[in-house]
Amino acid sequence: MTREEIDAKAVELVAHARGKLEVTAKVSASNLEELSIAYTPGVAEPTRQVRDNHALQYQYTSRASMLAIVTDGSAVLGLGNIGPEAAMVVMEGKGVMLKHFAGVDPVPLCLNTQDPEEIIRVVRAVEPSFGFIFLEDISAPRCFTILERLTQELSIPVFHDDQDGTAVSVCAAVRNSLRITGRKLRDMTIVLNGAGAAGLATARLLTELGAEYITLCDVQGALSKNTPGLDPYRAAFAAKTNSKGVTTLSEALRGADILIGLSVANAVSKDMVRTMNKGAAVFCLANPDPEILPPDAREAGARFTGSGRFDYANAINNLHAFPGIVRGTLDAGARQITTNMKLAAVAAIASFVPDDMLKDEYLMPNVLNSALTDRVAASVKDTALSDGVVR
Amino acid sequence: MTREEIDAKAVELVAHARGKLEVTAKVSASNLEELSIAYTPGVAEPTRQVRDNHALQYQYTSRASMLAIVTDGSAVLGLGNIGPEAAMVVMEGKGVMLKHFAGVDPVPLCLNTQDPEEIIRVVRAVEPSFGFIFLEDISAPRCFTILERLTQELSIPVFHDDQDGTAVSVCAAVRNSLRITGRKLRDMTIVLNGAGAAGLATARLLTELGAEYITLCDVQGALSKNTPGLDPYRAAFAAKTNSKGVTTLSEALRGADILIGLSVANAVSKDMVRTMNKGAAVFCLANPDPEILPPDAREAGARFTGSGRFDYANAINNLHAFPGIVRGTLDAGARQITTNMKLAAVAAIASFVPDDMLKDEYLMPNVLNSALTDRVAASVKDTALSDGVVR
Repeated sequence: MTREEIDAKAVELVAHARGKLEVTAKVSASNLEELSIAYTPGVAEPTRQVRDNHALQYQYTSRASMLAIVTDGSAVLGLGNIGPEAAMVVMEGKGVMLKHFAGVDPVPLCLNTQDPEEIIRVVRAVEPSFGFIFLEDISAPRCFTILERLTQELSIPVFHDDQDGTAVSVCAAVRNSLRITGRKLRDMTIVLNGAGAAGLATARLLTELGAEYITLCDVQGALSKNTPGLDPYRAAFAAKTNSKGVTTLSEALRGADILIGLSVANAVSKDMVRTMNKGAAVFCLANPDPEILPPDAREAGARFTGSGRFDYANAINNLHAFPGIVRGTLDAGARQITTNMKLAAVAAIASFVPDDMLKDEYLMPNVLNSALTDRVAASVKDTALSDGVVR
Repeated sequence: MTREEIDAKAVELVAHARGKLEVTAKVSASNLEELSIAYTPGVAEPTRQVRDNHALQYQYTSRASMLAIVTDGSAVLGLGNIGPEAAMVVMEGKGVMLKHFAGVDPVPLCLNTQDPEEIIRVVRAVEPSFGFIFLEDISAPRCFTILERLTQELSIPVFHDDQDGTAVSVCAAVRNSLRITGRKLRDMTIVLNGAGAAGLATARLLTELGAEYITLCDVQGALSKNTPGLDPYRAAFAAKTNSKGVTTLSEALRGADILIGLSVANAVSKDMVRTMNKGAAVFCLANPDPEILPPDAREAGARFTGSGRFDYANAINNLHAFPGIVRGTLDAGARQITTNMKLAAVAAIASFVPDDMLKDEYLMPNVLNSALTDRVAASVKDTALSDGVVR
């Protein structure tokens, strides 16, 4: 299908179905007996039991699988700050993925505010109805504050897909490229272009995995401890990275081993890629049009290429990560998502591609394979249990 | 079934189903083509269209039928202030009714706060995801403030079932008892026992219907302009009613034509009913045990009796009212629920019982008859259109 055909079908689909999500009853209420069990007076007895033992809420209500997809519509797809009404279309699409791949009950909560304190208040207030808070498409640096505070203040897991979903998927691709070359992450010179939610989270997770030479670039060039006007999150990271003190993306890429693009279309030229080291990896995930197209990157000398798109080899998508992370976290009854759990997800995704299948053009598992979710979920669950973060 | 059997089955039901509600996808995503239409990149085009024309959100997302059931767990069933965790069991039961009888997509939002200002903030923040706010089990007088403020501040309809659902159902029963006797509401001496959410709302709606002699009683006796310590809502009503200046429920009932009980079990004795006028109506709705059982009221001389229970004649239940009101309001695309719309619901419920069926023991329609919802919805919708409150 051409992009135009996809667009037309996508509009037809939502208009016909009037949205993509539906809330349905798991029990019947078609006669007075059923009604007296499902509603009044029967509802009183399980209610009394939960009143006396809140833990029973997870058994007697849908809370254990109810997941709020929370957004303020401030950083939606490539569309930017489009607000909560339009964002709901995307949240419902994400909800379909969460239902299909993680088996949860997704409820979009598109908020009428972009004030971080207000978003935190609202999520705190709705907490008792949900088992999981899935933050989505909230712009940086507000998303860092919101994720950090909610993780501290709630007793249920909070996940920001644009940060950690992306970070986990990218790290799995990086890890599998190193499986092929036999090289070590700590020896790699890594350039991240895009210092938003995904860029910063990916840089952090790469550091957790052992990366030592990272340069983070944004539209103004390479960040360093000398870059003026950075928010505390970027400043903290910039201070620890860019050890060579370069100032531009071109300069940073010279002699680099890995380029990760989490920025905008066409931000990287073939000439830039030509200056990278032999055997370089170029994973450019800007959506729908990457920083550089995989064939162009390969023509410019890259050995490994990847993008967010399914129509090129090595699609690197959040869809590799979030279903298993969500499922495993809920299965464990985890109160939060630890760094170890994210690292377990990276390892599970990477190792899902067996040695005899792994090759330059096959770094990532097929996202449609439901066994992937199961494998990631099992690893994440085990790690939650060993981290002791379950309720 | 005995009450013990119902309780046991109700616990078994929720424990087995792990709650009563589920969120499902209306579209498929099982191959890359479907995924590219339902999710990325297809989702971008309808999103752009909604960004440019917010009204399209009602066509391209589930908003038009998404209904938030909002509670703070402060006044749940007969159980009182049990908090949001236990309240979720009841909200899911209500959700099943809303799905089954009104065909909406109900999402329980059980809030972690009982501060009215905070509840208003939270509901205002989640507004863009919902087409309807259904308040439930919030204690008076906080519920009056919350309903009033949200009605003013939101552009979607807000309904508090404990107030207006009850009021509409009770008024329909009263109306049909008068159809039989041929008497006028304005001539009736009416006593309402219970000055909570339901009591006050019912008193107000009876006034709208033309009632002139109302006395509102609570545990301290009959309210009047001399009653100390009333909140503004009760004070305003007390000042306009109880024209005889009685001080106790017993005193109020002497020579009364209609008793409406919205208080607690066993609050009314046979001796009290004996002092009412000939042909009296005694509608006692405390749940699960009424103020006086219908057989006892009849023995004490009442002509018409009714209760909230389905195991006696004349069950008077919110279920008569809220499905049609919700459905009609959404079908009209109404921004609010006007008094006229509530009065239309009263008339539709009452007239659903045809003349040749109407009798002392058959004042109310069968709640399981889906044609009732359709009739009420049609009336409510027409009235919304003629009131000009549609978006």
